[in-house]
Amino acid sequence: MRNPPSLLSLSVDSALHNLSRISDLSPLPEHILLDLFLKTLKAGKLNERVLKLFIATGKDEVLAVIQALNIREIIAPVIPSSTTNFTVNHDKIDIVIAALHPDLTSFLNDWRPVFSPYHLIIVKDLDMKEELIIPDGFNVDVFTKSDMDRVVGSSSSILFSGYSCRYFGFLVSQKKYIVSVDDDCTPVKNDDGSVVDIVAQHIANLTSPATPFFFNTLYDPYRKGADFVRGYPFSLRSGVLCALSCGLWLNLADYDAPTQALKPELRNSRFVDAVLTVPARTLMPLSGINIAFDRELVGPALFPALRLAGEGKFRWETMEDIWSGMCVKVICDHLGFGVKSGLPYVERAERGNAVDSLRKEWEGVKLMEEVVPFFQALRLNPESVKAEDCVIDIAKEVKDQLGKVDPVFGRAAAAMVDWVRLWKAVGSSSS
Amino acid sequence: MRNPPSLLSLSVDSALHNLSRISDLSPLPEHILLDLFLKTLKAGKLNERVLKLFIATGKDEVLAVIQALNIREIIAPVIPSSTTNFTVNHDKIDIVIAALHPDLTSFLNDWRPVFSPYHLIIVKDLDMKEELIIPDGFNVDVFTKSDMDRVVGSSSSILFSGYSCRYFGFLVSQKKYIVSVDDDCTPVKNDDGSVVDIVAQHIANLTSPATPFFFNTLYDPYRKGADFVRGYPFSLRSGVLCALSCGLWLNLADYDAPTQALKPELRNSRFVDAVLTVPARTLMPLSGINIAFDRELVGPALFPALRLAGEGKFRWETMEDIWSGMCVKVICDHLGFGVKSGLPYVERAERGNAVDSLRKEWEGVKLMEEVVPFFQALRLNPESVKAEDCVIDIAKEVKDQLGKVDPVFGRAAAAMVDWVRLWKAVGSSSS
Repeated sequence: MRNPPSLLSLSVDSALHNLSRISDLSPLPEHILLDLFLKTLKAGKLNERVLKLFIATGKDEVLAVIQALNIREIIAPVIPSSTTNFTVNHDKIDIVIAALHPDLTSFLNDWRPVFSPYHLIIVKDLDMKEELIIPDGFNVDVFTKSDMDRVVGSSSSILFSGYSCRYFGFLVSQKKYIVSVDDDCTPVKNDDGSVVDIVAQHIANLTSPATPFFFNTLYDPYRKGADFVRGYPFSLRSGVLCALSCGLWLNLADYDAPTQALKPELRNSRFVDAVLTVPARTLMPLSGINIAFDRELVGPALFPALRLAGEGKFRWETMEDIWSGMCVKVICDHLGFGVKSGLPYVERAERGNAVDSLRKEWEGVKLMEEVVPFFQALRLNPESVKAEDCVIDIAKEVKDQLGKVDPVFGRAAAAMVDWVRLWKAVGSSSS
Repeated sequence: MRNPPSLLSLSVDSALHNLSRISDLSPLPEHILLDLFLKTLKAGKLNERVLKLFIATGKDEVLAVIQALNIREIIAPVIPSSTTNFTVNHDKIDIVIAALHPDLTSFLNDWRPVFSPYHLIIVKDLDMKEELIIPDGFNVDVFTKSDMDRVVGSSSSILFSGYSCRYFGFLVSQKKYIVSVDDDCTPVKNDDGSVVDIVAQHIANLTSPATPFFFNTLYDPYRKGADFVRGYPFSLRSGVLCALSCGLWLNLADYDAPTQALKPELRNSRFVDAVLTVPARTLMPLSGINIAFDRELVGPALFPALRLAGEGKFRWETMEDIWSGMCVKVICDHLGFGVKSGLPYVERAERGNAVDSLRKEWEGVKLMEEVVPFFQALRLNPESVKAEDCVIDIAKEVKDQLGKVDPVFGRAAAAMVDWVRLWKAVGSSSS
């Protein structure tokens, strides 16, 4: 029998070279094998041939490591995704902006370092009369009322006015990923004065796995410098696809009108350096201010369906994103996708008078009391395996259960059905 | 009719004085009333008499604010709890330290600014032979093997060795709140060089409500400077009692042996400035390194029951806290209490060799694969309304369902039953 310590005193390369000439490693003590296996893995030298040699030893501890670390046919250890190194092709991303203000000059110039490499879809609020002003130097397509009439027809139950105009951009995009930010947001700066790249962070969130089935107390385990905490089941460490990334807001946060009216001085200045997966079967108030999603996975589930009677042009006068957010979360839970919340932040400037908005938003406040128990109890048809089918399931339940509570829900259900029809029509005409 | 703007141009005090002479406010326009109401509330001048006057107007918007803000019989608006101003009496708090090292001098001196106002319970690992060294200047009670034998008897299924010795401190404490930190933790410093007061932060977490039924994307809504995000249902904004606060770790984080063995350079340097409620029905790996809890609410649910065959004196060789954590989380969900995770952080120094521990901990890694689905599916008896009854419920299911998988579970179930018996006996003898 070989002298095992000499194997360990060698470099990993030499050890692997020796290893390749060993037809049967079984005589080696288990702890020597384990140590060599870990060194090989850490050095990124674990290829398929070497992995097979280790598996062939049949040693419990080595097999347990292989199983626990989810090593199947990989060549190198899993590299955690990092916001600085994501490798999604720029062609797979659309940035969708709802233009509620005609002059986008300062907005787009602020975001130029982040947005300029990407294709932009700008959708003009159909209530806006003025011409849009868009600075040079962007790859941009603008959509207006005439495009909506052409694609949707004027008799639709779906209205692309105010914040809801962005959804037209979601509809006509042909990209895998959508990033969408309200036009009253400005970039947050890094400590070195550079602009925080929200696209990179959102795409990192979407392309690294989500962990909805067990909470990791150190937040996103795939982030550089983080991992799964002791006790986290190994079988859940490979995670699931992430379908939706919800960013946050500094300065004027996304509070409702009553909260802002009561605490007019309230500003969010706390930067929380975290991304986390919102656990399965936990509902959340999805804000449309700063989001990204995988259009192929859940595109049909982001729609403008719930419109308040007094809906206005301030965020706190809208509920369309909250409603769609409840739907998309339930759908992600049903389909086994994850939803993340946290980074990236944007900065929001003050506008509007919350006390003036208070009246308009009470309707929304009251509706939520009906909406939340409904979605908490909702179970979708197990045979629905695509987002569009799930939307139809939900629309039916909304009509049956909530329709009698308030007519706004009946209209929302009808809009959801129309949306899926439209989504399929646009998809088949563009493909 | 009075001239309403003149009412608003007055100070709140004068306006309230006028208000007290108005027997019927109804003729005033609704937006004037609403504005005055908000001003009154913000100024902390809303007393019961004034509230009744506003209610008597019968105006929809005013009533909606009163309902939405959960104003019942309060005198002043709810002040969010802040870590700097908590008002729990020091007599209600015990700090419990498991002594795994004989010389606690540097540990206690490091923590002196934080711990010195409190009563300390130090429990000596019953395997340790050396005398404990405890510096002067603390209000401390030390418990050793002879105390355990006296209280528990030597034939018990509960073994207070290694990290499990702390639970003896939980048992003999007579305080409402327990804070417990491992003896290899040191304080984190604030930016100004002062020591982070983990007791203040834990108690702030425990004494402000938890929100397990809906996720708030801006984390703890009761924290100073934060609030509930738009779309958060008002009926859930009063929250529930918080029973457990789980702090985190900088430097050597609470990773398992395989993770540390694979990534020996892995250190946690990311300070995440957040506290959040772990949502209902979401399981988590509870770490015993840095925790606090409300002993009156869930004391009987923190116990040393699951002991690995190869359990050692390093954290990554233990599972007792993870197991107890699954139990206490399920119990909190059943009883409607909240569990928080996040701040405060402690710093952990390096010790132990993860590769050496790897072998011992595989047992724990494998057990978790059985444990998680069991707890995810577990439903407690609706008639169990106290933590001790819930523990008995769980013990029965563990024995019935997991007992056949591995004898370690049968022993855990027996220890849980013994623990409840012991908890009741100690409680009745001390009261």
